[in-house]
Amino acid sequence: MIELDQEVVDAEDVETPVGYVDLARARANAERIVAYANEHGLGWRPHIKTHKSRTIARIQLQAGARGLTVATLREAEVMSSLTDDILLAYPPVGRRKLDRLLALPEHVDLKVALDSEEVLTALSAAASAAGREVGILIEQDMGMGRVGLQSPGAVVDLAHMAHDWPGVTFRGVMFYPGHIRMSESDQTVHLESVSANVADTLRALRDANLEPDIVSGGSTPTVWRSHEIRGLTEVRAGSCIFFDREGLDIGVASEDDIAYTVLATVISTAVPGRAVVDAGSKALAKESRGGGGGFGVVFGHSEVTVAGVSEEHGVLDISRSEWRPRIGERVRIVPNHVCVSVNLQDHLLATDRGRHGLLDIEGRGRGLWPD
Amino acid sequence: MIELDQEVVDAEDVETPVGYVDLARARANAERIVAYANEHGLGWRPHIKTHKSRTIARIQLQAGARGLTVATLREAEVMSSLTDDILLAYPPVGRRKLDRLLALPEHVDLKVALDSEEVLTALSAAASAAGREVGILIEQDMGMGRVGLQSPGAVVDLAHMAHDWPGVTFRGVMFYPGHIRMSESDQTVHLESVSANVADTLRALRDANLEPDIVSGGSTPTVWRSHEIRGLTEVRAGSCIFFDREGLDIGVASEDDIAYTVLATVISTAVPGRAVVDAGSKALAKESRGGGGGFGVVFGHSEVTVAGVSEEHGVLDISRSEWRPRIGERVRIVPNHVCVSVNLQDHLLATDRGRHGLLDIEGRGRGLWPD
Repeated sequence: MIELDQEVVDAEDVETPVGYVDLARARANAERIVAYANEHGLGWRPHIKTHKSRTIARIQLQAGARGLTVATLREAEVMSSLTDDILLAYPPVGRRKLDRLLALPEHVDLKVALDSEEVLTALSAAASAAGREVGILIEQDMGMGRVGLQSPGAVVDLAHMAHDWPGVTFRGVMFYPGHIRMSESDQTVHLESVSANVADTLRALRDANLEPDIVSGGSTPTVWRSHEIRGLTEVRAGSCIFFDREGLDIGVASEDDIAYTVLATVISTAVPGRAVVDAGSKALAKESRGGGGGFGVVFGHSEVTVAGVSEEHGVLDISRSEWRPRIGERVRIVPNHVCVSVNLQDHLLATDRGRHGLLDIEGRGRGLWPD
Repeated sequence: MIELDQEVVDAEDVETPVGYVDLARARANAERIVAYANEHGLGWRPHIKTHKSRTIARIQLQAGARGLTVATLREAEVMSSLTDDILLAYPPVGRRKLDRLLALPEHVDLKVALDSEEVLTALSAAASAAGREVGILIEQDMGMGRVGLQSPGAVVDLAHMAHDWPGVTFRGVMFYPGHIRMSESDQTVHLESVSANVADTLRALRDANLEPDIVSGGSTPTVWRSHEIRGLTEVRAGSCIFFDREGLDIGVASEDDIAYTVLATVISTAVPGRAVVDAGSKALAKESRGGGGGFGVVFGHSEVTVAGVSEEHGVLDISRSEWRPRIGERVRIVPNHVCVSVNLQDHLLATDRGRHGLLDIEGRGRGLWPD
């Protein structure tokens, strides 16, 4: 039984909207991913941006995650007492962020992903001044066009610097195949392309006598096919701890795997064909999924979508449903993208085998931890 | 000079991403709206969901706002020491929310907007039990299709109940023309339609001897044309205190009026034609504006849009610009929708005539205030 952060509460007494987490499902998701990774000789270093919660990170580590991936210094600080293995999958730019990075506890084997000589130069100088050794993953763009070096040659050049310079150690390469968001059945060509790019880079590194011990990739949309990327050593998939509507649409999860919903209350039924709940863009986020699919779907009523959101209004389209929710009734909504919805909550209402409690989201925000 | 909540800071020392507010511009925007409203015999009861900040609300009240509009109980609690006049433009559903509403200080002349007999019944019972009198605005749908009664007759029926029942007093009608988001030049037909609907409702109320003393409407996209809606007594327009990219696109604001931007730092320039900043969907939000226009625009470089966002990445499209930002350089981004961006910040970095300080966002979140 997971320790809940705050005493057991009566769920009916918790105000809506609030993020609602099923800890048993989160545990099952974590165990399934670890089993998959083990079967294929991969590690799982989940990105905790999805939940930012120490309770959920403990579930991931207890299931067998090899360490944790973070995006912000706050997240790194919050998680640093839970594991010896943290990957900051984000370049730390600026003196304050470098100071926070190098102030993380000594027991943490720190790794940082970056894609520029500028960031490596500043990090090398700061780390060596602090008497610390930081592992470096060189980030390569595998088709997403967001960050990452553009060729194996550029990766080798920066890896050489990381190998040679003080305060830093070359550890490997990182990429994020975030451009692969189609259904599982359509992913094959893209996965083959990523796999070929990874092979080119690994060959170039070996030719330069730079053997990476970490090749870090993976995303939730491709999570069950990560083994098709040859040479990969680990996956960082994060949202698969909870899953969301994107996961349902892509087919990597079923409704039984959904461990996060937003608990909301019906506040108006004045407009025909509509029912309005108190979860809007400040609880669900307003991230389109394309195809006019709205901003979420009602859990247990897959025919009812959140057709529109304002800040505090979620407009349910009940025109294709027999269901007629009443004012005051509570409903649960699966958001399009779980990570940004969690980030909008003050806390999470968690259920664990019949008990309810509140979970803190300690890694939320950007300030120094502890506050 | 506005009191800054926290001591003066060196802006360069504040970590990014952070919401950045120009208080002099906010003050000028407030004064311009009050001048417009005064010219047309209207009041301004700004919706403070945009900023949730007591400092900004003080600017609005000092400029001449007649009171404040809020959406959540938290916002009402935070603002209740600043004004005697609060409109909760949202139906309070559930015992906890009613308790919080009726626990607001006695000096506050409370008004609540609602659109159902269910909510009115519960509010009447709770208010009369608490020995309190709550003003009621009946909400009508003027074309948005979100909330609000569908006909003048339905408004009259609910107004009668509000007039007759204990604990509540009929005060008037409310609507939100949130469906009018096209350019100012295209708004005419829609405003005429709203105006005709309002006239019908006011006639029906007068025929029933229910004279409204408040007719509350207005939105930022229509703010400078609010006087064209005959019978209106006040506008609630909120985002016009800061404006945003929507305001620029619609033409109700120019870049000189923009009082809120997100201060961000360039963290990668590895992908050709792109520069990536540390403000993504967890700082700007990921709200589309249609037409493939991205998620924001760089302040001072209107040719550069935020073409894509991930949670901690904003991808600037610099392919149509001569500007080549360097890693570590700070840039300011005008988000598509200011209200949801402010809601993502821990605090705001404010500038006021050369000084910088941090502003609290006291109304953010949903818990009881003071915490």
